[in-house]
This record gives sequence, structure tokens and C-alpha cells, in this order.
Amino acid sequence: MNIPSDLDISRATALKPLEDVAAQLGIGAHLLEPYGRSVAKISLDALEELPEEPTARYIVVSAITPTPLGEGKTTTTVGLGQALRHLGKRSAIAVRQPSMGPTFGIKGGAAGGGYSQVVPMEALNLHLTGDMHAVTAAHNLLAAMLDNHLHKGNSLGVDPHRITWRRVLDVNDRDLRNIVIGLGGRADGTPRQTGFDITAASEVMAVLALSTSLQDMRQRLGRIVVGYTRDGEPVSAEQLRAGGAMAVIMREAIKPNLMQTTENTPVLVHAGPFGNIAHGNSSVVADRIASRCADYVVTEAGFGADMGAERFFNIKCRTSGLRPDAAVLVATVRALKAHSGRYKVVAGKPLPAAMLAENPDDVRAGAANLRKQIDNIRLHGVSPVVAINAFPTDYHSEHDAIREVAEAEGARVAVSNHFLEGGKGALELAEAVVAAAEEPSGFQLLYPDSADLRTKIETIATKVYGADGVSYLPAAARALDGYEANGYGNLPVCIAKTHLSLSSDPTLLGAPTGWTLPVREVRASVGAGFIYPICGEMRTMPGLGSHPAAESIDIDEHGQITGLS
Amino acid sequence: MNIPSDLDISRATALKPLEDVAAQLGIGAHLLEPYGRSVAKISLDALEELPEEPTARYIVVSAITPTPLGEGKTTTTVGLGQALRHLGKRSAIAVRQPSMGPTFGIKGGAAGGGYSQVVPMEALNLHLTGDMHAVTAAHNLLAAMLDNHLHKGNSLGVDPHRITWRRVLDVNDRDLRNIVIGLGGRADGTPRQTGFDITAASEVMAVLALSTSLQDMRQRLGRIVVGYTRDGEPVSAEQLRAGGAMAVIMREAIKPNLMQTTENTPVLVHAGPFGNIAHGNSSVVADRIASRCADYVVTEAGFGADMGAERFFNIKCRTSGLRPDAAVLVATVRALKAHSGRYKVVAGKPLPAAMLAENPDDVRAGAANLRKQIDNIRLHGVSPVVAINAFPTDYHSEHDAIREVAEAEGARVAVSNHFLEGGKGALELAEAVVAAAEEPSGFQLLYPDSADLRTKIETIATKVYGADGVSYLPAAARALDGYEANGYGNLPVCIAKTHLSLSSDPTLLGAPTGWTLPVREVRASVGAGFIYPICGEMRTMPGLGSHPAAESIDIDEHGQITGLS
Repeated sequence: MNIPSDLDISRATALKPLEDVAAQLGIGAHLLEPYGRSVAKISLDALEELPEEPTARYIVVSAITPTPLGEGKTTTTVGLGQALRHLGKRSAIAVRQPSMGPTFGIKGGAAGGGYSQVVPMEALNLHLTGDMHAVTAAHNLLAAMLDNHLHKGNSLGVDPHRITWRRVLDVNDRDLRNIVIGLGGRADGTPRQTGFDITAASEVMAVLALSTSLQDMRQRLGRIVVGYTRDGEPVSAEQLRAGGAMAVIMREAIKPNLMQTTENTPVLVHAGPFGNIAHGNSSVVADRIASRCADYVVTEAGFGADMGAERFFNIKCRTSGLRPDAAVLVATVRALKAHSGRYKVVAGKPLPAAMLAENPDDVRAGAANLRKQIDNIRLHGVSPVVAINAFPTDYHSEHDAIREVAEAEGARVAVSNHFLEGGKGALELAEAVVAAAEEPSGFQLLYPDSADLRTKIETIATKVYGADGVSYLPAAARALDGYEANGYGNLPVCIAKTHLSLSSDPTLLGAPTGWTLPVREVRASVGAGFIYPICGEMRTMPGLGSHPAAESIDIDEHGQITGLS
Repeated sequence: MNIPSDLDISRATALKPLEDVAAQLGIGAHLLEPYGRSVAKISLDALEELPEEPTARYIVVSAITPTPLGEGKTTTTVGLGQALRHLGKRSAIAVRQPSMGPTFGIKGGAAGGGYSQVVPMEALNLHLTGDMHAVTAAHNLLAAMLDNHLHKGNSLGVDPHRITWRRVLDVNDRDLRNIVIGLGGRADGTPRQTGFDITAASEVMAVLALSTSLQDMRQRLGRIVVGYTRDGEPVSAEQLRAGGAMAVIMREAIKPNLMQTTENTPVLVHAGPFGNIAHGNSSVVADRIASRCADYVVTEAGFGADMGAERFFNIKCRTSGLRPDAAVLVATVRALKAHSGRYKVVAGKPLPAAMLAENPDDVRAGAANLRKQIDNIRLHGVSPVVAINAFPTDYHSEHDAIREVAEAEGARVAVSNHFLEGGKGALELAEAVVAAAEEPSGFQLLYPDSADLRTKIETIATKVYGADGVSYLPAAARALDGYEANGYGNLPVCIAKTHLSLSSDPTLLGAPTGWTLPVREVRASVGAGFIYPICGEMRTMPGLGSHPAAESIDIDEHGQITGLS
């Protein structure tokens, strides 16, 4: 099959004026602040003008445990949002802003794909309205003020060995992971070891995603803990007098960005926190606005349902107060075949040829993962809808195999062909979602604020991941005790583990049992408002491959971008 | 005297729609790309639509050698631009974008001041349209691709000890000046020593400022030299296949930003290269557009006339082909008193009280600097106009002393009170500028491209700085020989020395004689297109003070910014 590239489809889209896109949601032009011709920020005055109570059904799009290639969650989110319009529903889509590092690295852009894209994809993937850059700037100002505090006498008594605040850049740069700063002479600071993370991994990004208003963001920024004194007392951004300046740097970033899809459906693009050490969901502010002016809000949660959706329920909805009405689980033939354990899928490489042969037995052999992820949605009292994201290489028998598994679990299920057909291709999915969402929502948090941190971790590990229990390295146990003592015990937890398995071991496919979750270390994002136990090696700064995408990206003689995908 | 703060004046300004501001220059609304409500980018299609030949008189605003406090060059530039409108001239102002690092450090913002400001000052000082962030991103992508090249086998044979490309961030962070990267394990890169500069010091910023078009920028980015092989061959961004991706990142940044002054005069804000290791002038593209639609283009060159104006003439005008018609030299009573050598002025501290007493003799005692800077303008065949930037603490007798010195040199002179009175306060100055500009321009470059690098350096040192000659440390001499051998001998030179003296010693005030310019080191900005000899210690990454401006900056309960100055 010969379909145009994502960039060509994006360019061929007839964009509607953003005023018209916003008008579809009843958002007036006076609330829009244009950034170039294809993106506008939505003023937070919208929160004052719109009705107090949410009017929308709230749909989260998650997935079974993905292969390293990803299973098309963004594309499905966009396709579903478009399809709901075909059914006469006033829909809004809410997604994360992609990170520029991976765009120039191995992954390429992240705008959906085919005829279910956010457009123009260049604007989405490059700079957008500068929110990512604002996070970088606010984060690094705090770092500079902290090291300046050490340099100017350290009156707060910060222990240089217990500084947890690193620096960030939105670039894939492995050489910045572990660095020594402050070399040179006396005027050049205080030597110490530290490093850079990618901007998406910044706590400031998580703050942006979880804040409910500008003032709430200001308070959260001040609460960020950058390290500890020699006596073990936390040191905050507020104590360094950095919270105000950081909020000023982030003052525009808190406004959601309005774009549109290939079918002119409104999309709110806002915030892009990491999916492992942070909660991997787009912003609360965008969803709060959209849910008060749309019939349906479709948002995406990063990685599989054990990761993004669990955090969507227990971190994002806990903060926003919004209640989800249905959850879509994206499943693909290739991912279920991979969960059979019979194939090896590697990022950046083509699929093994044998995986492309018709083989519904392989699909059934990987079904345990789908069953467990359906269960993970139900755990939260939400109706699951399985979306089979169709690929041209799939066979009907393979789709039928997925359908049988899902229906045996009592889940709704639909084949979706939105990549090639846009919203029209996702009509069956949209109908299933509407049916699920019209049932009364039994949404419930998995654990109360008041549970202690170990109980929260163990609840997620045993109920969601299927672990037998949790083990803690001594440092992790000490950290948990310390956080309880510091008064952070009431925060939800965001467990950092691989997204390639329900377990903490990326090689265990399907639905592993008989294993224990090993917590190596525990860190705190006090400003954003969660504790994150780390299980396994978490890379917070990617590297570039032998042939980064950047090498193929250029402008042509007309000034048009080439090679961006 | 009680005048409102700059931020209050900025907020009280009735902004005109940018379409109306652009219309004053005959730039159609279809050429504007709005970024928020108060800034718009100007499409480079303007270069196609506007008349081929420049129509405007071209005025550069420079200064005598300033005190560490600065003498109000931006304010004078804005005041003059406004005053020309009072005289019925279609004027446009072109200035640099301020750097966010100093905004949160010691210096505060850089939008002019009083009733001669670029507004809104928050937009100017914070992010603007993201050009500065784009420079950071493009610069650091090249750095990551270079270190990735080392990591992946170094097929180009780059000598890790001869890498000249550092990284950049727009923050005052002394601890990043000297760092070791690539620590950790084998997967974490190659350990080596390097550091960060502030973004304004990036060669990418100088490229942005000197490019004549998008395609020219693409070529310059590719020509950037990042280091040398073990055989001494230069290694370029093009060889690393980074030039295209960098141009894509910079594709919007090449478009000038349109703002307005407190009197709604059009201002093009574009690029902000450092004033010592780079040429310290706003962009060629902005001036090329403005000069084809205005009667008068008023632009600012950083630091004193020996620095910014010399580079304006010999680097910027050499590149753009534009010919200046007059040069304003900003002089203040306090700076001339400082040049008497009788007082010590320190940045961030109040002036010595004795300096504020009426004392025209002190002014005359410092006049040698003014005389030499007038001469430096004349060296280039351009008419000088001395602008006495009036302060409330000045005395008439002191202004008269400056006037006498300037007139004795045959220069036009005017007292300007634009800070308190806006354009009306600069009418005398505007009339003097018009008279000077209406004379035929005898503009000439100080040296031809074909002169060798040592001749270029010695011409500037002896003719502009008043040195007896130039000495070269062995490393500098070797570097010059190497650059001539590499074929860079035809480039102009940008001498990096202190801006606080005509000499290379910041403690020598007035117009020092009997000294030799010591060239310690020579570096090349091959992409931007200049060689920069370094005379003395050049700090390319500022630090924060004991009480950074950031500590006082916040948002209030209405979300308004407080404490920004």
C-alpha cells in the first residue's frame, strides 16, 4: 500500500482558522492568543467564563503493554476524537507535547500519524509555543540559584552531597548524564558531581502538568525540594527565593495550546512529563477547560495501562477531581504476538518477518497481557473498551482472536482503522466508547491519601502489576521513612519501572506471576506532588543512535522542512 | 523626582494593534505572524515584496566608553526613533533581544527605560518569541551530535583535545563554566573537559544576527567549525550532518520580531549576540527589511564606539551591504566624570555622592574619551552626532562642557531628555541626526577583506583603540597562522577586549596612549564569519550576585508580574 508520509499528509491538510476550531467548543476568540498561524494559547480566563461543572464524558486512552515500537496510542486518541465528531458529539482531544530531543534522535516526532494526526506536525514537534523551553529555563534558574547559594556562603546549610536537583536540556545528550561542575578557579563555583536530564523529566514539567491554576503552579514550584541539609531537613525552592521567578518564567506555559487534527477536530496540547519517573499525562488545566465545554474529552496516558492509566487515575484524577467515564485499551496484533514470547522486537529495526505471517495462535498466546490490562482498568471502576489498532499487515483471523479474548473478559471491543481512514475508520470504536461512557461511572481511586507509602506501593505492585510483593533495598527503606517523617506520606506514588513489561523486568512478557517488585531507591517530587520509587535502571537522559534522525532533517530550496517524521 | 517604574510605564502604555504598527512602515498584515497579543514575527516574504533598494537613512547609536552602569544607549535609540516620528519621518527602530540570564541576575531587563521603552517590557525580557531558546537548542544539538560522533567511533578523527564547541544556556550559572562531561559508564559518553557559555555568546546567535536570508543561515550553520582533527584540519557542522537540523530548529528564529515603543513607534527586535566575543549588533535581516520600508532606521551597537560601532561598520555593514548615514554617540555627565579618573563606579552600587555635585571641570577632565570616540566614527567616513543623555542630577554647566568639547571637534551635539519626556525630549537630537544624515555619506570600511589577519588587528588597535601596536602570545600567533592556512584570512576580525576602556585594561580611563594590545588567544567563528582575537579575560558565562534579581521577581494575586525591572 502506498500512502503519503505523515509530513505530506500534514501539509495537505486544509487548516481551519483557530477561531473556528475553538468555536466548535464554544471558546470565544477573545480567549485565544495566537502563536504563529497554526497554534493558539487558551487564556486561563476560560476557567472563569465556562460553566463551573464538567459537562463532558471523560475518556482516557491507554494500551496493553507495548512493544518498543509503540502501539499507536496517540493515533488512536486522535482517530477516536475525530470519530466522535462523526457521531455528532462535540469532542476535544488532549495530548502531551512531544519532546524535541527524541524528534532529532531515534524516535522522530509524536503527532499521531496517517489521517489521524495533530497538524501541522512541524509546529507540534518543534518548539510549539515554547512551553518546553520555559520548563528548561525555570528548572535551570533554580539550579543556578542553588549553586549560587553554595558559592555565597550556604546560609541554609545545604549538604552538597544530598542535592537532588539536577539540570535539564531538551536534547538527547548522553555525555551530560554524569558531569562534574564548578571546576576552574574560586570564582567559578563549587566542584561537585551532578548531571542533566531531558526536560520532559524535569519536576517543573510534572508541576506544569498537575497544576490547577497559575497560583497553584506558583505554590507547587515553591514546594519543590532541591536537597537536604546536613541535618536531613528538606530545602525548598521557596527557601532559595526562586519560586516567584520560576512562576514568572512559566506564566505563559500554564496556558494550554490549541491545535487541530487532520479533520479539524480541536486538540489541546499541553505539558509532556516523562512516562516513567513522572506520571506521563498531559495537563490538568487542559482537561479542566475541555471538560467544561465539550461533550467528550479524549486524553492519552503514556505507556501501558499499568503505567500511564494507573497514574492517570491515581495521580492526575486525584489532583483534578475529574472522573473518567471509560478507558480505551489499544491492542495490536504485533504486540500480542510479541507477548507470546516467540519473537524479539527491537526499536529502530523492522519487525521479524515471521511475525507478519497469519497466526492467530500467536495472538492468543500473548492474550494474558490484554486480560490483565483489562482487569487494571476495572480495578478503578471504569469501563474498558479494547481498540484493535489495525495494521495493513494484519489478518481478520488475528483481529478475531483479540476480539474473542476481550469479549470473554466482558469488555467492549472494536477494530479501528483511523490511520488510513481518519475518524471514519474509528466509528466502531467511537460507538463502543459512547456506549461504555453512558453507563454510570464507578470510578474509584486505588488507595486513599491516608495510606502510608509502603501500602500504596504494595497495593499497586500486587493489584496492578501482579507481583507477589515488594522488596526494598536499605536506601529505599530509609528514604521512605524519611519522607513519612518529612510529612510527604500523604502523597500518591508514581512507580518508575520499565514500560515493556507488567513486571519490573523488561524481558518478562505476557502477565508475569511469581515475582517481587524490587524498590532500589525512592525519590520525591514534592512540588509536583508524588513520591517515586525506582525499580530498575531508569534512564532520564536519552542518547543519540549511530544515525540520529537529525542527520536527515534539512530545509529545501523553498525553505520547507524535509526529513521530519 | 517621582516617576513611575519602567514596568508601570510599560503597563500604562496603550498598545496599538501590531497590524497598525506595521502599517506605519507599509508592511501588510499578511506578512505578520502574531505571537501572543503584543509581538509578531515578520515573514521573510517581506524581502520579496518590498522595493529592492534601501530607501532609509541608516543611523547607528553608539556611545563613549561607558561606565559599568551603561549610559542609556537603548533608551536613546528608542527616544530618537520616537522623535523622528515627531518630525514627520517614517522611522523604524532595530535593537537586540535581551538575554534572560542577566534579567534574573544583576542587570535586570533591557528594554530602554522611562518613556522611551520597548513595550510590553515583560514580553521583551522573557522568552519573546523563543528565538533565544531556538539558538540554545540548535547549539546544543550540534554539541550532542559531536559527542555522539566521538562515542560512535569518531570516523572523522576529531581530536578530543581540540574541540572548540562548548554548550550554552541562557542563565547566569558560574558553576557551568568549567565542567567534565561523559562520566559514568561506557554507555555514558567520552570523558572530557568543556563548559557552558551563555546563549548570547553562541556562534549560532552570531550566525542569526549576520545571515541575510534563511538559505544563507543554513549555509553559515553548516560552516561552523567545532574543532580540529589530529592533523589540524577543521571539522564543520556540515561534516557532522548537523547543519540541516540546526536550520530547521532556527527556521522561525530568522524572522524579525515586531514590537512597539511607549509612543507606538515600530521596533524590530532581533538577535542578541554578545558584545565582546561576538559583534554585539542586532540582525542584518531586520535592518534589511526596515531599510526598505522606512525613512529612517535607527539601530543600536553594543558598548562604546570602539567596540559595537567598529563592528557595526566593519562586520555588520560589510555583510549586509547597507551604508550608515550618521552615528549617534551617547555621552553622559557621569561617564565623562568617571573618565576623569577621579571616581570609582561599580556595577550594582549607587554612584559616589561626590560625583553628583556640580562639577564641569570633572567633565572636561574626562573629555579625551569623547574626542577619541568622535574620531572613531569619522575614521569610517560617517557623521557623528553627540547625544547628551540627560539625567535629573545633571547641571546645565556640565551639559555645556560636553557641548563645547563636541563642537570643538566639529561634531553636532544635542541634549536629550527622552527618558522623562519620550520622543518630545529627543527632538533636538532628531534634528541634529537628520541634518547629519542628509549630508552625503562618506562611509568606508576600515580595512579590505584581502588584508591579512594581523594587519586587520593592528589597524583596529592603532587607529581605533589608540594603541602603539599589538603583541601576540605564541599560541595566538600559531592560531593566526593556522587560520590563514585554513583559508579564513579573508574574514573580518572582532577583537574581544574590555568595553570599559579604549584599551584592553579596564582600569585605564579617558583615551589611553603608550600601550600595546596583548593578544592572548585567537578563535574563529567561521560560520558567523569573523575571527576573534582575545585580549584579556573574557567571561562568556556570567554568575549571579549575592542577591540575584530573581529573588525579588514574583507574580501577585492577580497573576501580574512584580519586581521585574
